[in-house]
Amino acid sequence: MNNYPSKMIEQAVEEISKLPGIGKKSALRLALHLLKRPEAQSLQLAHAVVQLRTETKYCPQCHMISDGDLCGICASHKRDESIICVVEDLRDVLAIENTGQFMGLYHVLGGIISPLSGISPGDLTIESLVARVASGKVSEVILGLSPTMEGDTTAFYLTKKLKEFPIKLSTIARGIPIGGDLEYTDEITLGRSIVGRVVYE
Amino acid sequence: MNNYPSKMIEQAVEEISKLPGIGKKSALRLALHLLKRPEAQSLQLAHAVVQLRTETKYCPQCHMISDGDLCGICASHKRDESIICVVEDLRDVLAIENTGQFMGLYHVLGGIISPLSGISPGDLTIESLVARVASGKVSEVILGLSPTMEGDTTAFYLTKKLKEFPIKLSTIARGIPIGGDLEYTDEITLGRSIVGRVVYE
Repeated sequence: MNNYPSKMIEQAVEEISKLPGIGKKSALRLALHLLKRPEAQSLQLAHAVVQLRTETKYCPQCHMISDGDLCGICASHKRDESIICVVEDLRDVLAIENTGQFMGLYHVLGGIISPLSGISPGDLTIESLVARVASGKVSEVILGLSPTMEGDTTAFYLTKKLKEFPIKLSTIARGIPIGGDLEYTDEITLGRSIVGRVVYE
Repeated sequence: MNNYPSKMIEQAVEEISKLPGIGKKSALRLALHLLKRPEAQSLQLAHAVVQLRTETKYCPQCHMISDGDLCGICASHKRDESIICVVEDLRDVLAIENTGQFMGLYHVLGGIISPLSGISPGDLTIESLVARVASGKVSEVILGLSPTMEGDTTAFYLTKKLKEFPIKLSTIARGIPIGGDLEYTDEITLGRSIVGRVVYE
């Protein structure tokens, strides 16, 4: 499968197969699909990727991807500013928003502490979270992290960092199966795990 | 999952999920991956897609993707010009080349007759195949099509088109399980099906 007849196709397969979960065969299938469908559609995909990387902004408060200055959730008057739910990334925000059970703000870490993948606390937005809590406006921080080893490690690190502040620190209830992935949990289970969150003593 | 906080991410998810076999959740996962890894890598992917669409050339003889004028196989002196193997697309050429059992030339149809997908004979390179055969240099045409309903329809159409010429017309042996996909067949089965091809009488 290695002697592609054209540099263009070799290069495209090479780049596409760098994406997670896509091997060389799938990459070739996608490349041929990109060649077959109307040119404008394929160029739109390339354009969307370029825009995604060059024009995306992040909310300066919660670090979620955003179009404007503050993100829609941080800017909303309907949200309870005193409660912050800490999550790994945007997918978890969308999953929790879907439950309709949470009316506070978020804090997107941008990842999870994982020595195996080389992600240390300094790569995440933890300092910014501590600053938000230190401002005194926050009464509760909910840790909305996946119940995996990395999630538990991150939760442990955050509780140590936040315990000096006079706030309630909680974690979403472990109704989620251990080892499962937060974003694939059904809405009812995820909603209940927010309502039935356990307060750290 | 529909209220993305940014137009950029919405657009990227929209475009990525148009690819075959990729749903909205996978598209969001890929978009976040594109955001997380170094910017140069993501832009390389976009660049490769643009180049694929704007700079790819096709071999004027066999219609395979090619860098130069004639493709490497058509230009080679080691290949037997009198035998043409007709295939659906590039993936089938790569699969057959991998067996090392075929030393003739190819003819890439660029698809397969499929009324359900709206692909008719006029969308394929069939006229060009007829012209190659009519030139008189060809002694045998092997139909290397997947043994599916569309493959059989295409084979039937081609035999009708080619039967007026004084050539041997054959099909790769049906060692391949019926309903299977040619590109996923193991090399030994595929190699044998070329050696043991059945001549149409």
